[in-house]
Amino acid sequence: MSGNSIGKRFVVTCFGESHGRCVGVVIDGCPAGIGLSEETVQRELDRRRPQSEQISTTRREEDKVQLLSGVFQGRTTGAPIMMLVWNRDVDSSPYEEYRWKPRPGHADYPALIRYEGNNDYRGGGRFSGRLTAAIVMAGAVAKTYLQSKHVEVLAYTVEVAGIRAKTLSNTSEIREKAAGNVMHCPDEEAAKRMEKAVAAARREGDSVGGVVECLALGLSPGVGDPLFDSLDADLAKMLLDIPAVKGVEFGAGFGAARLKGSENNDAYRVQDGRVVTETNNAGGILGGLTNGMPIIMRVAFKPTPSISKRQRTVDLKEMVDTDLEIRGRHDACIVPRAVPVVEAAVAVVLADHLLRLGL
Amino acid sequence: MSGNSIGKRFVVTCFGESHGRCVGVVIDGCPAGIGLSEETVQRELDRRRPQSEQISTTRREEDKVQLLSGVFQGRTTGAPIMMLVWNRDVDSSPYEEYRWKPRPGHADYPALIRYEGNNDYRGGGRFSGRLTAAIVMAGAVAKTYLQSKHVEVLAYTVEVAGIRAKTLSNTSEIREKAAGNVMHCPDEEAAKRMEKAVAAARREGDSVGGVVECLALGLSPGVGDPLFDSLDADLAKMLLDIPAVKGVEFGAGFGAARLKGSENNDAYRVQDGRVVTETNNAGGILGGLTNGMPIIMRVAFKPTPSISKRQRTVDLKEMVDTDLEIRGRHDACIVPRAVPVVEAAVAVVLADHLLRLGL
Amino acid sequence: MSGNSIGKRFVVTCFGESHGRCVGVVIDGCPAGIGLSEETVQRELDRRRPQSEQISTTRREEDKVQLLSGVFQGRTTGAPIMMLVWNRDVDSSPYEEYRWKPRPGHADYPALIRYEGNNDYRGGGRFSGRLTAAIVMAGAVAKTYLQSKHVEVLAYTVEVAGIRAKTLSNTSEIREKAAGNVMHCPDEEAAKRMEKAVAAARREGDSVGGVVECLALGLSPGVGDPLFDSLDADLAKMLLDIPAVKGVEFGAGFGAARLKGSENNDAYRVQDGRVVTETNNAGGILGGLTNGMPIIMRVAFKPTPSISKRQRTVDLKEMVDTDLEIRGRHDACIVPRAVPVVEAAVAVVLADHLLRLGL
Amino acid sequence: MSGNSIGKRFVVTCFGESHGRCVGVVIDGCPAGIGLSEETVQRELDRRRPQSEQISTTRREEDKVQLLSGVFQGRTTGAPIMMLVWNRDVDSSPYEEYRWKPRPGHADYPALIRYEGNNDYRGGGRFSGRLTAAIVMAGAVAKTYLQSKHVEVLAYTVEVAGIRAKTLSNTSEIREKAAGNVMHCPDEEAAKRMEKAVAAARREGDSVGGVVECLALGLSPGVGDPLFDSLDADLAKMLLDIPAVKGVEFGAGFGAARLKGSENNDAYRVQDGRVVTETNNAGGILGGLTNGMPIIMRVAFKPTPSISKRQRTVDLKEMVDTDLEIRGRHDACIVPRAVPVVEAAVAVVLADHLLRLGL
Repeated sequence: MSGNSIGKRFVVTCFGESHGRCVGVVIDGCPAGIGLSEETVQRELDRRRPQSEQISTTRREEDKVQLLSGVFQGRTTGAPIMMLVWNRDVDSSPYEEYRWKPRPGHADYPALIRYEGNNDYRGGGRFSGRLTAAIVMAGAVAKTYLQSKHVEVLAYTVEVAGIRAKTLSNTSEIREKAAGNVMHCPDEEAAKRMEKAVAAARREGDSVGGVVECLALGLSPGVGDPLFDSLDADLAKMLLDIPAVKGVEFGAGFGAARLKGSENNDAYRVQDGRVVTETNNAGGILGGLTNGMPIIMRVAFKPTPSISKRQRTVDLKEMVDTDLEIRGRHDACIVPRAVPVVEAAVAVVLADHLLRLGL
Repeated sequence: MSGNSIGKRFVVTCFGESHGRCVGVVIDGCPAGIGLSEETVQRELDRRRPQSEQISTTRREEDKVQLLSGVFQGRTTGAPIMMLVWNRDVDSSPYEEYRWKPRPGHADYPALIRYEGNNDYRGGGRFSGRLTAAIVMAGAVAKTYLQSKHVEVLAYTVEVAGIRAKTLSNTSEIREKAAGNVMHCPDEEAAKRMEKAVAAARREGDSVGGVVECLALGLSPGVGDPLFDSLDADLAKMLLDIPAVKGVEFGAGFGAARLKGSENNDAYRVQDGRVVTETNNAGGILGGLTNGMPIIMRVAFKPTPSISKRQRTVDLKEMVDTDLEIRGRHDACIVPRAVPVVEAAVAVVLADHLLRLGL
Repeated sequence: MSGNSIGKRFVVTCFGESHGRCVGVVIDGCPAGIGLSEETVQRELDRRRPQSEQISTTRREEDKVQLLSGVFQGRTTGAPIMMLVWNRDVDSSPYEEYRWKPRPGHADYPALIRYEGNNDYRGGGRFSGRLTAAIVMAGAVAKTYLQSKHVEVLAYTVEVAGIRAKTLSNTSEIREKAAGNVMHCPDEEAAKRMEKAVAAARREGDSVGGVVECLALGLSPGVGDPLFDSLDADLAKMLLDIPAVKGVEFGAGFGAARLKGSENNDAYRVQDGRVVTETNNAGGILGGLTNGMPIIMRVAFKPTPSISKRQRTVDLKEMVDTDLEIRGRHDACIVPRAVPVVEAAVAVVLADHLLRLGL
Repeated sequence: MSGNSIGKRFVVTCFGESHGRCVGVVIDGCPAGIGLSEETVQRELDRRRPQSEQISTTRREEDKVQLLSGVFQGRTTGAPIMMLVWNRDVDSSPYEEYRWKPRPGHADYPALIRYEGNNDYRGGGRFSGRLTAAIVMAGAVAKTYLQSKHVEVLAYTVEVAGIRAKTLSNTSEIREKAAGNVMHCPDEEAAKRMEKAVAAARREGDSVGGVVECLALGLSPGVGDPLFDSLDADLAKMLLDIPAVKGVEFGAGFGAARLKGSENNDAYRVQDGRVVTETNNAGGILGGLTNGMPIIMRVAFKPTPSISKRQRTVDLKEMVDTDLEIRGRHDACIVPRAVPVVEAAVAVVLADHLLRLGL
């Protein structure tokens, strides 16, 4: 039970189900006086909407946000901000079958056990990717706050179906190019190949995964709490809360395990009166605190578990092996739609940590 | 500020510094009636002590635990358990220099900024690997509780200096073999090569990193809280709180990003009246809940930042570039000593989650 | 900021403003499988509605609850329960004046300072008694859960305008008689005098306060957490969160300060195989834990600060003394409407504490 | 379980038992750079020590504080501050009898049930008044921080054994006079009568209770969090965590319930360019926020439950009625020793709330 809130000063509480009435969020702790409108939130929600039928679900939710508390005369009041989107384009018919025939790779089976059969299983209920709309709404508020602190969060696709984008170092270029294709990938050529790979997987009734990279720019040194509330730890927790994430790494990440100390340590130097590092293997975080360099993290997404290929599962009523063919509307690759979700998740954690410092 | 507590029902609060008087822990929420002695905790602390001068620091802390509250007549009372080890073999002399010449790869620089120069910088202070003694003490209590629930946590080295151990699937074999060498690696042949690589790095005044894998066995399905307190998210948070960790992955992890859905989904089948999966790409967790299969996670450790090779850094008083040679006693590879720390960290999170369920 | 959530396992988060779009609540941690309908919640909300124009505000809110998540097929799912009532009968016109002329006894002045003028001041905004609708909604869910544990919470008026009800010891009689009059007072004769006193105060443009007593029945011994989460401490916190509460006492309360130990100590004896106490000066709580006797607490409500008599205040723009006459629709005595709010508040805390025990 | 921590930014975790090895505290979240020494903490602990054999226990604990982490070169570092006092003058012999014959008015019986017989029952274990030493240690740190913000907390005895002190309004006079007698009562004549009443109760093998009043001075308007973390609610929670407290009230408190709105509302006026109120029935708090006037609260202490008079209790093994005579060393009146505890408790809450505001 519980577990639907996160944060200490910028506290996000999420409610709603995939096929229930709505999906929404309460944000407690947003400072008063910040300009906020439904349009700002809508813009982020729109980035999360399916952008191509080749890649994403054909469920067509308008996802028009309603901002129902905490804002007065266009500014936050310091009171809890409640926002929601209503569910409209719902087709729950296939889910009666999955209730007792758990879909491989989904939470159906553990959720059934956990809630003793009381969980709303329609559309994956509480475990649906649709819940990420709540994270995006919260992230829109967090980003608005971060902007006032000159902090930017920028996520983009770096790998899909084993196709890796080439590395770019100029953030303006990354931002611009990633916005220019449905894969949200700054390497346009790779983006095209990714798109083809996704379309091919869809045709086969299959799906593919990928990796999203995220930068956080503009943080001064010393942000983060020590030991158990390390900034990287809190980021990892939030990122692993996103459905389908199976790994997170910072800076050189798993690659750092193969470097020598003399290679991995980022040498300091003075540049324009500021302390910088020559490399950024640390990914901007040392001892759980920012060091003033950009935070870099990578997030691994598994392939969407909903595939139309026949799969082996069990009949939980009869306790026998059986087969399953999943109908319904699903994303052949969740990665492009995950890009704004990763940004939102990171923004929420950063807002929380800045507010912990009284900033 | 704050951030030195973790957990909701099994709450661990850590105190102490590398070169202060002591390092210790308060555990609040351990159920009453569990047999607990200093010997049990000592056994785990001893596993964390340096086992070879080739690999580890020559700082020789006896690390004799004192159990100072919460236990009466050999059993936990339900009251907070306070335990500590005293610091004795302390040599703070080199650290005066590092105060204004931050060591690359260490938290010196962000900590100085964060605490406005008030932090205890000796031996890395609050950011020292010595703090992991507190995690190990807490883990010893968590493991004792988990044992009563038939849950086992088992960590071991799978990669050091780019040398990968071959994969074993039999957990008894893993446990036994990993206990048999200083690298805590179940592949004895790889362990020898790892040991040599560490010794070579030490001779060069350098260091190496690696990867620890950890299994959690015996958990029934449905453990974990939804959305923001997903079991994998809480594990990742705790693991990234361990100094030098730069990445965490579950099951197929980053590799899952390269699989198709049909490859990555773990098919269910009935075995001996229980639901099992044929593969375990999920690493035992779906939707943040256990699915009854072993939890598998991998943790990437960067090479120890303390190397004796000369490094470039800055003089923060003069704000000019300078050089630094680190003296003191350090681990050329932290990985083997991290193995019991990873186990402890995982045990603490699992104990917390079982207790959240009222188990 | 923040502060709009309470509870550790039964977590209540409140949103909305007096004159905003809605007032609502998210409950995280309610166990799955509990029968819950809008009707159950509505019944409690209806008890909070004004029952007499002599006593209460003429603002007429229908307060029809909408249950928008966390319930499926008539039962709780274990997911967050979101409920709200829409605001409809809103007249914000007088509040423009109060913005800079703070109403004595209201939160206008400290709220203006705290939120630097960004707070929604209409109708008292976040500090309005209307927020108690959220507590009542949460309490309705808590009560439903408590019923399944055979725990009952019963509040009633024991004092208004200095008129004290005579003490009854039979809880059935208390319940029945308190339900029979608009003052929710089990002493019918006193209730009539209270009603007259309130009406008289209203005619004078004034208001009166009073005391609500609350019983919690059916709790087994040992409920509560030690030291900082004492059951009485958590109850007191929740009760003081209700607007207009200025004091809380348990059992003999302030009167205990005048007794000798030999008078105040409740002697134990065995009755029907159970341990009971002969008196209940402790009010059912010893060392922060239930002792198996009924919990008894009393809650002091100040007179409604909104009175139509002319009052002295300041003009915060000019920083000069001035006068103020409050228009709008207000309760001449909040006490009867506070009775279901006290019950709800107590129910929320008890549900939380039972769930902490895994019950 | 758990419950041994309090606070959100200034987090106090308490450990230890009455007859265990020690009683101590960890403070997480104290800002870095505050001058702190063992002497400062000792001064507060000494105020809590028994000052007269006529009134208090003859247990003679030196209570020499050891400050074991979080302070470096005489200043706080931002790391957790751990402090403890060792238990030395322990006589556990009588407690074997009470284990199964619960002392009326003590937590013996509910604690036995709660911890299924595993609790450390010696000296009341975790439920002993000795635990207040931990609160006093935490309070000493909180007061040091508050001093830097020009906030003062001042508690004193206003009633013992039914004898009420006359009301003084000059805080310097209160401070000075209360420090001048063992009852910590600003009315010297009443203090003498109180002292006699306590001595008389002791001679009869009995005990008396009383009321402590506490002021908090120097807080600017707007301190406190809305709704569930109201400042008065958090103060009440902390005060009810002190053993033997049965009631808390703010400002006019229960008396406010008998006033009319026109009498109880505190009229505003401008004085020396500041907004003040003419009366302070609100006790400095409106809507859970400070209004800039002194906070005034009163705390009711029951008579010490430990009396040497024979009392009726039960034999829990045989489940029959029996008698009990309590031996051991106890306070005939806890009130004077509670004065520094109340101050400490209030200081901890105020420090926490100021830090929440980033002050």
